[in-house]
Amino acid sequence: MTDTPSKGTATRRGFLKAGLTGGVALAGAAAAGRAVAAGDPLITEVQDWNRYPGDGVDARPYGTPSQFEAGVVRKNVAWLTADPISSVNFTPLHELDGIITPSGLCFERHHAGIAEIDPASHRLMINGLVDKPLVFTMADLKRFPRHNKVYFLECAANSGMEWRGAQLNGCQFTHGMIHCVMYTGVLLKDILAEAGVTTAGKWVLAEGADASAMTRSIPLEKALDDCMVAFAMNGEALRPEQGYPLRLVVPGWEGNMWVKWLRRLEVGDQPWQQREETSKYTDLLANGKARRFTWAMDVKSVITSPSPQAPITHGRGRTVLSGLAWSGNGTIKRVDVSVDGGRNWHTARIDGPSLSLALHRFYYEFDWDGSELFLQSRAIDEQGFVQPTKNALRAARGENSIYHNNGIQTWHVSKDGVVENVEIS
Amino acid sequence: MTDTPSKGTATRRGFLKAGLTGGVALAGAAAAGRAVAAGDPLITEVQDWNRYPGDGVDARPYGTPSQFEAGVVRKNVAWLTADPISSVNFTPLHELDGIITPSGLCFERHHAGIAEIDPASHRLMINGLVDKPLVFTMADLKRFPRHNKVYFLECAANSGMEWRGAQLNGCQFTHGMIHCVMYTGVLLKDILAEAGVTTAGKWVLAEGADASAMTRSIPLEKALDDCMVAFAMNGEALRPEQGYPLRLVVPGWEGNMWVKWLRRLEVGDQPWQQREETSKYTDLLANGKARRFTWAMDVKSVITSPSPQAPITHGRGRTVLSGLAWSGNGTIKRVDVSVDGGRNWHTARIDGPSLSLALHRFYYEFDWDGSELFLQSRAIDEQGFVQPTKNALRAARGENSIYHNNGIQTWHVSKDGVVENVEIS
Repeated sequence: MTDTPSKGTATRRGFLKAGLTGGVALAGAAAAGRAVAAGDPLITEVQDWNRYPGDGVDARPYGTPSQFEAGVVRKNVAWLTADPISSVNFTPLHELDGIITPSGLCFERHHAGIAEIDPASHRLMINGLVDKPLVFTMADLKRFPRHNKVYFLECAANSGMEWRGAQLNGCQFTHGMIHCVMYTGVLLKDILAEAGVTTAGKWVLAEGADASAMTRSIPLEKALDDCMVAFAMNGEALRPEQGYPLRLVVPGWEGNMWVKWLRRLEVGDQPWQQREETSKYTDLLANGKARRFTWAMDVKSVITSPSPQAPITHGRGRTVLSGLAWSGNGTIKRVDVSVDGGRNWHTARIDGPSLSLALHRFYYEFDWDGSELFLQSRAIDEQGFVQPTKNALRAARGENSIYHNNGIQTWHVSKDGVVENVEIS
Repeated sequence: MTDTPSKGTATRRGFLKAGLTGGVALAGAAAAGRAVAAGDPLITEVQDWNRYPGDGVDARPYGTPSQFEAGVVRKNVAWLTADPISSVNFTPLHELDGIITPSGLCFERHHAGIAEIDPASHRLMINGLVDKPLVFTMADLKRFPRHNKVYFLECAANSGMEWRGAQLNGCQFTHGMIHCVMYTGVLLKDILAEAGVTTAGKWVLAEGADASAMTRSIPLEKALDDCMVAFAMNGEALRPEQGYPLRLVVPGWEGNMWVKWLRRLEVGDQPWQQREETSKYTDLLANGKARRFTWAMDVKSVITSPSPQAPITHGRGRTVLSGLAWSGNGTIKRVDVSVDGGRNWHTARIDGPSLSLALHRFYYEFDWDGSELFLQSRAIDEQGFVQPTKNALRAARGENSIYHNNGIQTWHVSKDGVVENVEIS
């Protein structure tokens, strides 16, 4: 695609903090509306859509977006992986608002492509250290008490390329391995109780029915806490690329553990040391050792507009800055925003439901004076964790990591409103 | 479509309350899972989706439901109106769960079909009793502070055919003129403030840009309270059939007032007495007089499963009853469920966020003993309003009405699990 980002050579662009200036006028903002002009053809002319009737209620049994929104899509980056069946695409965060991600735009990460499962043939087996090994059909599972929860799902590798400097020019690519939907399903603890976990049982292995047979180990404590086996998202059946007909939901923890196309849960007394929790999804430190079992996603935020794919096109004056914040520790307590690269911080306005382990939407309305800006956001969660700078993360963990980069992102806004992914030091 | 309901002649089926029996066993429910059977081919065989990789991340820029969900669609009823461009289709409530309606399944009600508007050409004008008549582009509007709210939208005519007895066999058709999404937009009061409403201004006329130029009068008090001008639903741009690029949001009030394809707001000193608020959307009483300006939607609920389109197929034992409740007065405080036609009531479990003026999801888990049931639900809102019986409504308003039927719905479950829309007296 023409707007797929190029790969940064080392650091996309560096700025010295000393050179930063403010960019917010203190005077009252200019009016956003225009005076009614007698001759404006867009007021006086009758457009076709006001002249002729459109499609009736029989035309679209399942609706799709407007033709004018054709650019609002998930995008993959061809050079990122060897094959699109084991790859990722990215949620277009810069085009979205609110806290719900439309199901059709939730990023995908597959290890062997999308399994197209007939739900009538699907089974979930529970085996291992249980009193009664059991098999459930989809209909069986829907006889357990159901629960509805809005949760974010973030890939552990989200923002992973940013460890080594500003790489990809757009929040879709730097932060788009996240989505947030309402799940409906049953509690994992309820179906485990049916099988009866023995006293020796300490871990649960979740296994997918796709051609990669994705497998991850989950501590029993988490499994019995808030994990769900979900069959619906945003009110309807799961989408195929999100695990239809059944996905494990592991609230607040890294996306790879939310096994899609879930077909088996085995109870054991120790972790299985699968590929996806040893050679992958571990964090290689500067000294060559690795952090492992880093499951919870840290407090994080990103400004989605203005951003490289959503420049300022209206010139100076009233400007809406919008972004997302989230934490694997619960709710977001506060988001700070800076327009001068972290010198001064302003409390953003969080708007919309504040739900534990869900995305939070924040806004900061300001009056842009037309000078260059360095936009940053910093989230603070209900446990008091504060989103760190990228350099603080690098000092602690080196630059070998791929996973768990929750560093503060910087967007540079030029005087003409163009926005670029930069680092400041 | 083959499963489009036939029109009832007078009353689909009547039952005398005297004949009702209970149907809930008190003993512990049987296990929902099945013992692992060594020879079950669905456990031992490797299916194609586990054998071969599927589509990669480049295949579906905008995702769609599984092929196995092809029946989960909006449906219209051909005999209901003369032409599908001025008609309605219905949300498949019986297939959905949670409180969010997927955008592609939100019911449609058009008066001249779907306007296909180029947002670059769209304008919103404010005129009438204002200091400064103004025109806004879409970009102008996005410079006001944005807000995110989950609201239900119910057509005033939802359940309208039920005034004269049980008519349509399925909650999709009896109650499917409702949806609930997260809206993002700006407050109507903020853009009215920009134009400056004069002291004489008491009413606002909202006008659509479609070929019907839908117009409704809204009291200024409501306009300045919680009305929004929304440009997004469930995170993305409004869908064309829901008013893209701009819709008026009138929380808790009848859907017809939520003018789609919003192009003009005129401030006046009295209502305009438009067709849609005089000959339509008024409630004809038994004495020939009409109730008018009945804007707020009353407290209401419906059991979505079991229901005529979602029969019980698993036989006796553990059964999940699920439904929706809502009120134009705020949140839902309690939902009662009866399985014996209103003789005995059980408090349902409300699950998921309880948001003001949004759908609430409720469940009642019970152990079905295989006898016939008469399922009912009764919602009570935060202001203490209780959903009435249909007969109480008829006693108060006669049977001429089309609009604002919030009566208690009854589903009859036969011993073989078949469910039918009935009335009991």
